[in-house]
Amino acid sequence: MGTFLTSRLWTNLSSHLNVSRIRAAAYSSAVRSRKWVLVQHFDGFPKHTDFELREEPLPGLKDGEYLCEAEWISVDPYQRAYTPNYQVPMTMIGLQCARVLESRCPDYPEGSYVVGGLGWRTHAVRNPSRDEGGLLPFATAPMPEMGALSRSHAVGACGMPGNTAYFGLLELCRPTAGETVVVSGAAGAVGTLVGQIAKKKGCTVVGFAGSDSKCDWLRTLGFDHAINYKTAKPSRALREAAPGGVDCYFDNVGGWLSDAVMCQMNLFGRVALCGCIAGYNDPPGRRTLVPMLQMPILSQQLRLEGFIVSRWSDRWQEGVDQMRAWVEDGSIRAEETITEGFENLPDAFMGMLAGQNTGKAVVKV
Amino acid sequence: MGTFLTSRLWTNLSSHLNVSRIRAAAYSSAVRSRKWVLVQHFDGFPKHTDFELREEPLPGLKDGEYLCEAEWISVDPYQRAYTPNYQVPMTMIGLQCARVLESRCPDYPEGSYVVGGLGWRTHAVRNPSRDEGGLLPFATAPMPEMGALSRSHAVGACGMPGNTAYFGLLELCRPTAGETVVVSGAAGAVGTLVGQIAKKKGCTVVGFAGSDSKCDWLRTLGFDHAINYKTAKPSRALREAAPGGVDCYFDNVGGWLSDAVMCQMNLFGRVALCGCIAGYNDPPGRRTLVPMLQMPILSQQLRLEGFIVSRWSDRWQEGVDQMRAWVEDGSIRAEETITEGFENLPDAFMGMLAGQNTGKAVVKV
Repeated sequence: MGTFLTSRLWTNLSSHLNVSRIRAAAYSSAVRSRKWVLVQHFDGFPKHTDFELREEPLPGLKDGEYLCEAEWISVDPYQRAYTPNYQVPMTMIGLQCARVLESRCPDYPEGSYVVGGLGWRTHAVRNPSRDEGGLLPFATAPMPEMGALSRSHAVGACGMPGNTAYFGLLELCRPTAGETVVVSGAAGAVGTLVGQIAKKKGCTVVGFAGSDSKCDWLRTLGFDHAINYKTAKPSRALREAAPGGVDCYFDNVGGWLSDAVMCQMNLFGRVALCGCIAGYNDPPGRRTLVPMLQMPILSQQLRLEGFIVSRWSDRWQEGVDQMRAWVEDGSIRAEETITEGFENLPDAFMGMLAGQNTGKAVVKV
Repeated sequence: MGTFLTSRLWTNLSSHLNVSRIRAAAYSSAVRSRKWVLVQHFDGFPKHTDFELREEPLPGLKDGEYLCEAEWISVDPYQRAYTPNYQVPMTMIGLQCARVLESRCPDYPEGSYVVGGLGWRTHAVRNPSRDEGGLLPFATAPMPEMGALSRSHAVGACGMPGNTAYFGLLELCRPTAGETVVVSGAAGAVGTLVGQIAKKKGCTVVGFAGSDSKCDWLRTLGFDHAINYKTAKPSRALREAAPGGVDCYFDNVGGWLSDAVMCQMNLFGRVALCGCIAGYNDPPGRRTLVPMLQMPILSQQLRLEGFIVSRWSDRWQEGVDQMRAWVEDGSIRAEETITEGFENLPDAFMGMLAGQNTGKAVVKV
């Protein structure tokens, strides 16, 4: 790794030494960033050989730029789905919380924190006026005030996944008190929040997850029913859990499970299509076959809407503020599965895709 | 057929004789209705042995009732889809235009016309105050003023299929000038109207139909492109017809064709799901498998909505009036495929399901 200065080493150093005055010169010429590069497109489930850990020197800062260092990097299912839109080799996409180490940009002072689509890299140089976030599409911006909460929540319950749950459920499903809400991928970053928000709205909540322990845990979060889709027959179990039918479905997975849910929806039911993890590993041109969704959609006059949370960018802060208030007052629990070490990002990512996390999967750099 | 008095014979008789005064007594005791009964549920594509032509005596009129005689009976794809919701044997469901032969109900005077879900029968006795239309769900009501138009349009362009096209396209797809609208089942009763309405709104219109002659005919109606899905490769042909992608999709068929269309939709595209003829003949529990729709819905943030036109019952007359105005001024052509004879209803129905009609399939009793 040669001259590479690890972020943890730097953090240790900087907390013991008051070196802010001499940092600028040192960084501007000497910082090398580590980054995880996707060297070939995923073919089915991701594997270690798809990734390579590389280093790159960062240029010295120009006016209007700042240098930041990753503190938390988020691994999320969309990262599997989006990479085919890029050319390989590519630095893996992803949100991170980072600390500004050096700045020639007044809005991003040294020591402040940012959050945004900086990818799987330890350090980055950014110019906010030119930062459009890329395909993700999340530009890097000052981190919202996190109070006593871990800054990791800025890429979790109080950031993109939180707003995904908040706006996706409330704007597309529009659940009302007394209705039944089903969530798939219920133990994941978004699903756990969706279920808890739906409980706040007075709904009966049914979650599908992939293990008995996840289901037990979901019940402790307030889910009325949790179904292990790997051991139960989803149609039958759902009929028992929701004998009056399903009004809202927040779908993170797609596939046969979603068919089972949609066939039990009530007239004018609403489906927020947030993810389709059952299809992310399909080879191009050979998508998984499932029963024609049109039949239940037609017979019950359902409304489905696929969404990417960036459509609510003009209301972003509203979602963050509300989610943070709920996490702070303890009425929503924002669980995390934390993997330590930048070098373990691929493992954290693949573990998340395999369902090994409960709640938000995040890597502490 | 015994004492059965055919409707045509009666029409001939009644036009030559002034028998209105003596009709009441005659009908009240003597009218027998012919009806087509579904004796077993369809198993795959409908066949003649699924139907039986039967006769039944009608009861004498009570206060508040009227007796009517079918003039036009409509055959529509939904009739294939809805029958599993009933118990066999059942009189086949369907809309008809009928003439009031005798009345003890002031709002339905003798000689007036009605339209509604009277099913495949020559005669019926109805009490409007108790008529909720059944599952169809179209109650029988006085026929709207049809001016110089054929009354058959009251079950076509100026009735249920017309409103299906009008509201489905305008309320769910909400096309705007310059957008590209795709219609499947384009040569059918609803599809032909959808395409013509979309042209009125300034859209580029692409229709999918099942023969070259239908496609030629669609172009004469103003469709910009018409694709024979049986001979062309839908994906490639659509890419050529709509190189800028598809904004709105009015879907009558579902299945693989719909997948091809949805994979070429633009961001925030809208899909009105009107029918799913590709799935109507599937056996229960063994629905046709297609690639997971969730992927294109998600990546382009599409909105799909299944609908049954009765949801706009409070605006029904608006649709009828507008469609009639457009048909009357010649700006929308309401083509019909007419089958003569009540006895040929099953043939007309099966022919329509096999795509032998262009425009509205209707039976002249």
